[in-house]
Amino acid sequence: MKVGIIGLGLMGGSFALALKKLYKNKGEKLEIVGIDHNDQHCIEALELKIADRITDDINDLLDLDLIVLTVPVNAMLKIILELKDISEHTTVIDFGSTKELIIKAIPKEIRANFVAAHPMTGTEKFGPTAADRKLYRGKVVVLCDTEENDPKHLKLAKNLFRELGMKIFYMGAKEHDRHAAYISHMPHAVSFSLANAVMAQQNPQSILAMAGGGFKDMSRIAKSSPNMWIDVFKQNKDNLLDAVDSINNELSKFQELVKNENWEELRNWILNANKLHDIL
Amino acid sequence: MKVGIIGLGLMGGSFALALKKLYKNKGEKLEIVGIDHNDQHCIEALELKIADRITDDINDLLDLDLIVLTVPVNAMLKIILELKDISEHTTVIDFGSTKELIIKAIPKEIRANFVAAHPMTGTEKFGPTAADRKLYRGKVVVLCDTEENDPKHLKLAKNLFRELGMKIFYMGAKEHDRHAAYISHMPHAVSFSLANAVMAQQNPQSILAMAGGGFKDMSRIAKSSPNMWIDVFKQNKDNLLDAVDSINNELSKFQELVKNENWEELRNWILNANKLHDIL
Repeated sequence: MKVGIIGLGLMGGSFALALKKLYKNKGEKLEIVGIDHNDQHCIEALELKIADRITDDINDLLDLDLIVLTVPVNAMLKIILELKDISEHTTVIDFGSTKELIIKAIPKEIRANFVAAHPMTGTEKFGPTAADRKLYRGKVVVLCDTEENDPKHLKLAKNLFRELGMKIFYMGAKEHDRHAAYISHMPHAVSFSLANAVMAQQNPQSILAMAGGGFKDMSRIAKSSPNMWIDVFKQNKDNLLDAVDSINNELSKFQELVKNENWEELRNWILNANKLHDIL
Repeated sequence: MKVGIIGLGLMGGSFALALKKLYKNKGEKLEIVGIDHNDQHCIEALELKIADRITDDINDLLDLDLIVLTVPVNAMLKIILELKDISEHTTVIDFGSTKELIIKAIPKEIRANFVAAHPMTGTEKFGPTAADRKLYRGKVVVLCDTEENDPKHLKLAKNLFRELGMKIFYMGAKEHDRHAAYISHMPHAVSFSLANAVMAQQNPQSILAMAGGGFKDMSRIAKSSPNMWIDVFKQNKDNLLDAVDSINNELSKFQELVKNENWEELRNWILNANKLHDIL
């Protein structure tokens, strides 16, 4: 299989390494061609054997078996237009964290080839050096609006995700974007806020010296890349603002209960939060 | 050494297991006497070899070498009064997450014996079955107002914490409570709020099916015990409310920047959050 990966960061790099392992195990041939606007990333991707070769011309990818898009979601909107002339047999998969605007941007001619996916995984790190071939294993991938795909392209994508050990969920793009705001985009805003709340104190050093596991877990994603996340926030603005309202409401409820020393009601509120883990 | 542990949950149980390992390695004798108002916890503590014996009479502890208090912080305020008649050679250490009210509650007669400590560790689990002998290793313990301790009691506590691989910080109780509000108490309120925000949506199941590592990390401590945390929130109410105001401000700032599409300013705000990890 010949695969083009556009964007050689954490997501693209990890996917490439996972594919390489998979194809080695299967004893089948795989060639990965990489594109990244960052020259240093290209050099690192070759060194780390993420890509077998690098190109700076997207036309080199148009006849491959598979093109994977792993760039920030606003860049995605432009790159999608450059894929208009892919071969009929080429499958495209995008890994964007938002889906509605991306799907709208897909040229009609290649809509059937284009599988819109959101793998629910990542770390706070970025760049090719952050790549980890186990990033996708055991994780969920959401596929959106698959009724618009040609079955053969959808099948290729589904088989690959399954072979990588992923669990596949299907969802409409609108529903996906709303859910993603609650499960991923708003929590990033909260983690950034938590970090900034501590940094705004007089002596963040002595506060942070006391950090235990709870704070470390909650502030981990506050290290995430502004480039990637501002794009996501732009594309999912309305759902995101709703989700932030929703956690603001809960924090205000908490403040009221503590202010009024309404401990019995606070207990019920905490017990309700505890229930999350019966579902998760 | 003879040690009494009052409260045989996660913190007390883990401390007992760590002590047992330490004394076994040193080839020295150790006896642990446990007290817990929950009979089931007493049975489990014996089964798990957390305690060598159980008593229901606090007077059985008053002549031991060390008494460790690992009960919710409001229970602590009462139990402290029952320790008024400990022997002059008995060291007491409390593990409360708040320090100012606890230190105020210590009877004058035993103030020199009483080392006020806050180990910055824990998990979302509770009860003796959650005990883990590695819970304290490599973690920070804050000792407060140690100038009020008799050097020999302070030395015993410090030696033990060091032998368990902990890093010791010293702080006034007031400063501790303010810092703890930001690094631990408010983040718990945020995690509970995040869980409740998702649970309040129409279909929490399909949102939670998409949960990746970020959400899982941020909601982990939303499973924490209401009993323990309501006590902490009670005792650190003012600092806690300040800290919640502080993250509310950041969330409002985030909302404004997104609403006004002020991406450049949002970028700076995220870059500032990223800096947390240069210190942490």
